[in-house]
Amino acid sequence: MKKVVILGAGLVGGPIAKDLSGEFDVLVADISAEALNRLGQKHNIQTRLADLSDAANITALLAQADYAINAVPGSIGYQALEAAIKAGVDVIDIAFMPEDVMHLDPLAKEMKICVISDMGVAPGMSNLLSGYAAHLFDSMTKLEIYVGGLPKKRSWPWQYKAVFSPADVLEEYTRPARLVRNGSVVTLPALSEPELLEMPVVGTLEAFNSDGLRSLIHTLDVPEMVEKTMRYPGHSELMRVLSHAGFFSTEPIPVGSNKLRPLDFTSAILFREWKLNEGEEDLTVMKIIAHGKLLGKEGSIAWELYDEYDPGTGIHSMARTTGYAATAALRLMATGLFGKPGVNVPEYLGTYPECVEFMLADQRKRGVVYNELRSGI
Amino acid sequence: MKKVVILGAGLVGGPIAKDLSGEFDVLVADISAEALNRLGQKHNIQTRLADLSDAANITALLAQADYAINAVPGSIGYQALEAAIKAGVDVIDIAFMPEDVMHLDPLAKEMKICVISDMGVAPGMSNLLSGYAAHLFDSMTKLEIYVGGLPKKRSWPWQYKAVFSPADVLEEYTRPARLVRNGSVVTLPALSEPELLEMPVVGTLEAFNSDGLRSLIHTLDVPEMVEKTMRYPGHSELMRVLSHAGFFSTEPIPVGSNKLRPLDFTSAILFREWKLNEGEEDLTVMKIIAHGKLLGKEGSIAWELYDEYDPGTGIHSMARTTGYAATAALRLMATGLFGKPGVNVPEYLGTYPECVEFMLADQRKRGVVYNELRSGI
Repeated sequence: MKKVVILGAGLVGGPIAKDLSGEFDVLVADISAEALNRLGQKHNIQTRLADLSDAANITALLAQADYAINAVPGSIGYQALEAAIKAGVDVIDIAFMPEDVMHLDPLAKEMKICVISDMGVAPGMSNLLSGYAAHLFDSMTKLEIYVGGLPKKRSWPWQYKAVFSPADVLEEYTRPARLVRNGSVVTLPALSEPELLEMPVVGTLEAFNSDGLRSLIHTLDVPEMVEKTMRYPGHSELMRVLSHAGFFSTEPIPVGSNKLRPLDFTSAILFREWKLNEGEEDLTVMKIIAHGKLLGKEGSIAWELYDEYDPGTGIHSMARTTGYAATAALRLMATGLFGKPGVNVPEYLGTYPECVEFMLADQRKRGVVYNELRSGI
Repeated sequence: MKKVVILGAGLVGGPIAKDLSGEFDVLVADISAEALNRLGQKHNIQTRLADLSDAANITALLAQADYAINAVPGSIGYQALEAAIKAGVDVIDIAFMPEDVMHLDPLAKEMKICVISDMGVAPGMSNLLSGYAAHLFDSMTKLEIYVGGLPKKRSWPWQYKAVFSPADVLEEYTRPARLVRNGSVVTLPALSEPELLEMPVVGTLEAFNSDGLRSLIHTLDVPEMVEKTMRYPGHSELMRVLSHAGFFSTEPIPVGSNKLRPLDFTSAILFREWKLNEGEEDLTVMKIIAHGKLLGKEGSIAWELYDEYDPGTGIHSMARTTGYAATAALRLMATGLFGKPGVNVPEYLGTYPECVEFMLADQRKRGVVYNELRSGI
């Protein structure tokens, strides 16, 4: 049995380990004994307490490994990936690091190591299917990605909860959104251009510009590209109000005799409001719509995802959709369908129809289903 | 010429001094040289730099006075009024102190001093007209008071600005509202029971429960009484959201390594957003509706006020409606129409139709017009 080391036993790392156990020889490492204990012994998973911010520990952990899944926090993601590549192990990366992962491409190529980066749901499957669409069309004219993670239960006033820290969510609400219009990259305010749209199962949602195109801006040659985040209608207006008033600012303001970053205060308040607790059900919705020309016809191809919390396993939809995309990619490598040395973004995998088919089929087995809809082509 | 000493040269004290100059020998005292300088020499007003939190200074200031207007901040209002009564001077009080002013009633009676307390617009004219309605009806069944101070210009997202500090406004948004239902005092959350209503000139406003009945709860025997604050539609929803989330809480929460009262932070943020600057136009709207029986008929009597910033003098509507109610009450005393020893709430004045008529006429001369509307009686 091939050996997989999972770096990080967090909300996504844990479910990944469970999904792979039995099929692979699984070792999970984390600095938190509590996180490791949650995985228990019953899943036939080995656990190892280790500080993954220390590259030497990663080198040691990967000594006997065939594959690694990099599921550490983004802040230590880059150095963990670098250490894994140097250890000579193929890697599925879902650390979602702030650094440009492509800087590690020469090293991966030199080491003849295959890395599939940002291989979650969005980024991840959104990139893969966008790349697939670009491959299918003779020419692609427009790409729209809509994605949202939401609580199933809508409660006034935020109608929002997340497994992420509010600070990370607020970062998404403040970072200007880069999108492509008429062939040029344009930057618009976060939370801008709200629109209502219908999604399967949940009904009407509201989508607004967010900075989620990332590598697609450079890898796809499509004149119109946008990524929008979806929330229940009303949420984004509250966020625009708070943002406008300065509640998300990182410029310290005087409060009494102290100085304080408003974002730190607001995160502290919203932490209590937005925390999705264990057992609270969440859902994931995504729609990718690609427009283009094929054999002289104009039309579109779209994929719709609706997924929700699994009460049987207690695994959140966020972990399911992210984690099972990563485990599908690992199986893709293990079966030998893909193994190109270097750092590979998911849209590149999308140019191999057999890889797309494999990825979709593997997730479908786990109930994560991308419905394809074609119109005009 | 009789001598009036105005304690406080603030936003209301200043316009009061200007209104009385020429007609009375006017002296204004304040701790702020800047506030005194704003009044200038041109208005024939004497100014005196004095710390009004020191009762001895008030005693000295009032030595030669016939009347005083107590326009100091609420926090030092009670002791200033006490000192004025002890100095043997009749007082119009608009300090809006948190303490129960009736505790000074025995002292005022003993000194044979007439105090008219809380003699602004609301509280003030709202009480006076409510008292008048109770006097007119054979039996009064219901009293509704709607009042709002607003910027003329409505700007997203708050549609609100004030000459008051945001902390004072937020206090109104958190203090539970006491109202009378079916003859009993009930307490409801601040900002509760929002309703839309039409007001003259401005159009549709939204009103919500606030704690403004004050003395009326005890002085009027009416089974249904409510006071609501009016804002532009949408404002109160944002306030309910912030209140619900804890942004107005006075319980310190940890932020980084500090502890902080959310209200202090939120006030600091909103201070920049809500400040009504010099020259920015405001307006005041009020509607008082009294229902009852008169000579066997059921009906209602209502008063509507719409007032706005005076560009000629640069005086805000808030100062006009509050200040000219106070100066009208001073003239009422000076003409000898009212002078009852003790602390008199405005609703008591309302039981003297000739006092009501005088008060309304005096303010009408200054453009502050209460339109009376009768229905069914």
